[in-house]
Amino acid sequence: MPTFSFSAQSGQPLYKQLYDYLKNEIKSGNLKSGERLSSKRMLAAHLKISLSTVETAYEQLRAEGYIRSVVKSGYFVCALDDVLELPPVQPAAPLREGTEDDVHAHYNYDFKTNTVDTAFFPFATWVRLTKQIMHDENRLLLEPAHPQGDYPLRESIARYLHAYRGVRCQPEQIIIGAGTEFLIGLIIQMLGRDRVYAVENPGYPKTFRIFQGAGARVRLVGLDGDGIRPDALLLSGADCVYITPSHHFPLGVIMPVNRRMQLLNWANAGENRFIIEDDYDSEFRFGGRPIPALQGLDMNDRVIYLSNFSKSIAPSIRISYMVLPPSLLAVYRRELLFYASSVSRFEQYTLCRFLSDGHFERHLNRMRGIYRARKDKLVLELKKEPLGSHVEIIGENTGLHLLLRVTNGMDEQTLVSRAKSAGVRVYGLSGYYLQAQPDMPESTVVLGYSNFDPAQLEEAVSLLNKVWFS
Amino acid sequence: MPTFSFSAQSGQPLYKQLYDYLKNEIKSGNLKSGERLSSKRMLAAHLKISLSTVETAYEQLRAEGYIRSVVKSGYFVCALDDVLELPPVQPAAPLREGTEDDVHAHYNYDFKTNTVDTAFFPFATWVRLTKQIMHDENRLLLEPAHPQGDYPLRESIARYLHAYRGVRCQPEQIIIGAGTEFLIGLIIQMLGRDRVYAVENPGYPKTFRIFQGAGARVRLVGLDGDGIRPDALLLSGADCVYITPSHHFPLGVIMPVNRRMQLLNWANAGENRFIIEDDYDSEFRFGGRPIPALQGLDMNDRVIYLSNFSKSIAPSIRISYMVLPPSLLAVYRRELLFYASSVSRFEQYTLCRFLSDGHFERHLNRMRGIYRARKDKLVLELKKEPLGSHVEIIGENTGLHLLLRVTNGMDEQTLVSRAKSAGVRVYGLSGYYLQAQPDMPESTVVLGYSNFDPAQLEEAVSLLNKVWFS
Repeated sequence: MPTFSFSAQSGQPLYKQLYDYLKNEIKSGNLKSGERLSSKRMLAAHLKISLSTVETAYEQLRAEGYIRSVVKSGYFVCALDDVLELPPVQPAAPLREGTEDDVHAHYNYDFKTNTVDTAFFPFATWVRLTKQIMHDENRLLLEPAHPQGDYPLRESIARYLHAYRGVRCQPEQIIIGAGTEFLIGLIIQMLGRDRVYAVENPGYPKTFRIFQGAGARVRLVGLDGDGIRPDALLLSGADCVYITPSHHFPLGVIMPVNRRMQLLNWANAGENRFIIEDDYDSEFRFGGRPIPALQGLDMNDRVIYLSNFSKSIAPSIRISYMVLPPSLLAVYRRELLFYASSVSRFEQYTLCRFLSDGHFERHLNRMRGIYRARKDKLVLELKKEPLGSHVEIIGENTGLHLLLRVTNGMDEQTLVSRAKSAGVRVYGLSGYYLQAQPDMPESTVVLGYSNFDPAQLEEAVSLLNKVWFS
Repeated sequence: MPTFSFSAQSGQPLYKQLYDYLKNEIKSGNLKSGERLSSKRMLAAHLKISLSTVETAYEQLRAEGYIRSVVKSGYFVCALDDVLELPPVQPAAPLREGTEDDVHAHYNYDFKTNTVDTAFFPFATWVRLTKQIMHDENRLLLEPAHPQGDYPLRESIARYLHAYRGVRCQPEQIIIGAGTEFLIGLIIQMLGRDRVYAVENPGYPKTFRIFQGAGARVRLVGLDGDGIRPDALLLSGADCVYITPSHHFPLGVIMPVNRRMQLLNWANAGENRFIIEDDYDSEFRFGGRPIPALQGLDMNDRVIYLSNFSKSIAPSIRISYMVLPPSLLAVYRRELLFYASSVSRFEQYTLCRFLSDGHFERHLNRMRGIYRARKDKLVLELKKEPLGSHVEIIGENTGLHLLLRVTNGMDEQTLVSRAKSAGVRVYGLSGYYLQAQPDMPESTVVLGYSNFDPAQLEEAVSLLNKVWFS
């Protein structure tokens, strides 16, 4: 019968001390497989503790599989024949993670494209709406959302898309998800990974990696001045193409209507061909009306429209959405409806009010003005000498970045490294080419300017002027 | 030169009316490809409108690709050789979507397993914390989160896992994502879809579909009284296995320590074998201490630990997380860090405070008491005659559901349909078998009881008593 002293100092309840003692006896082999434990009653009397203390300890050992109970016979030690004999492995080094900040620490100015200036976001309004919905919708917010996202939000998005992007859709066709990556994952499951997907080259390296990571076959298709080349697309053998027609990333091409129709005709000509239209930053066009989405021209259910609020609200608002043509909606409902909604319901409701109360429109109008002024300021600075005589500016009328072709004789790499030496980060265009192309523009860098104020733009370009012409 | 009347009634700006007119002329072929448009100045004079109105209309047409400008020559109509001639396709029927509510409308009582009682959630506290973080963290909340999730939240989760689940990990090993489905998708990308994955049969049909949907090979492996069978696992040829050892879904088996060690030895014996441990509802154990996670026994980096807050907080809180062994963390960082965090930063910060201020622990303690009382009440009701003499209750000590084997001579389908006729939804166990097994328990149903109050339990079981014994 086990004998050991309870410790009042350990701070552990008695049953836990008994449990630990017996567990160690079993693990060390002092109590052997098949051995019968003292009856609960006898052990309690022996140790001068309550029966329920012993019962709790035995029950825990039983639940974890160290002992088993046999009706009317008592408790027996289980076989632990597979005791692990491996030494504890400690991670060799602390698992310190590099943050974005670490990487960018030595740059004073970073012309990155995946950012927006959140300083102008009506944060107080957002907070007020969040408080309102927490008050009004209350516990409804804790129940699971519809897998496609809350219907009122989808209604608001459908209205916005119709009015501002010329997208034809019903709220039933919209699927809301936590990020474009997640939605592309669903698209690949709907369409199948046995297809061939084409992506633009140059383009988003991320998109290419998502398709590849999902195990789909991916082909790179080049562009001409009007966007992705239909002849090259046809040759690629792809039956699904991912494009950014409103504002090509990163070249800035706005696809003209004729090219759009060529692509739609390509889609209509084949069996089951689809176009994935990523309308990622079309809200920011500086002059005239917005360019309507390609989806609005599609009369034959060939276009999957994809967009998000990362650029128009804030990168931390992880709400993307897609509009499925009815034929694919049927596939989604049949096969993928089991995927729970990936977006917080609190945020869905807040965004819904932000849209329906007109705050989104006002915010976009305001940001359009702010970004236009920055773009104008950047272009003004870029036209100052000596850079002004050695620069071609491309794609500045839409979106939040532009291209700079510099004809001072330096190659792209030199431009980037010289800029770096002055604490300015610019991005070589070649980095967006997943495969070198013969017509790849030389000595070209990409500048995202959304996070710069006018004084910073002046200073940053003046630094470029110094290191590129010294 | 175009001649048309501006309409003051249309409410459209002049430039828009001119733009629409010219666009239609081009689309209809009245203005032909290559034709030169009137100069801006002449047209403005002719129509008696300002030059800038014409400029805006021309610029929009140019941006959309209907016309092009040639330096010093003017504007020319573009070729629209690919005009789409398809008739507009309208969706044949309105795309009405069935909601969960529709499907369940005719049940008065639904013993579903994927729900929790949110009525006891400290909503006011959650609201208060959300307001606090919106105030304290302010605009930081708008910046993108770390791809793995905010570090303070990961610290809180690591502390909780160590104290309550016996999981050994550093915050650097944790990856937070919007739902288990999303995280399993990342796991498959890390491990590769050329592997063979084993899942429990019976088990979560959803998990099986996620693996299959990702294009991985999946094998079903049966269970005995201790959980998944190591011999069958070995025979399956799988090198990665998904299990629910703390509380098997749906059988309720708690895997004993010996079986856990057998599985770890299986993992250690092969090259690159992994165990995915889904600890989905281990918070709710009614008696004794919690069963520590399998991960805590693993000394050789073979276990990926997976859990979420759907059951412990609310299904709408889409925050799941996984703990990667260091070797896989390196793969994640190298290949998948480009996936942006899929969880709202507002909610990450709120949850972090909810954990670190002790609210989570208090909430769990409270819910454990509430659910234990419900479980006791349900068992009490089930033991009433006539059911009491014809029932075996399985797996009631952990988690939020139990199994009921009914020996009144009815088969499972009859039990389910009789219950339905009384407005009670119960779930046949066979529905969780992805493939029939010879040892499949007969006449067994699954009852999730988390969303029932005591009076409802009494009423629902009394209805079952009526229809199962009449």
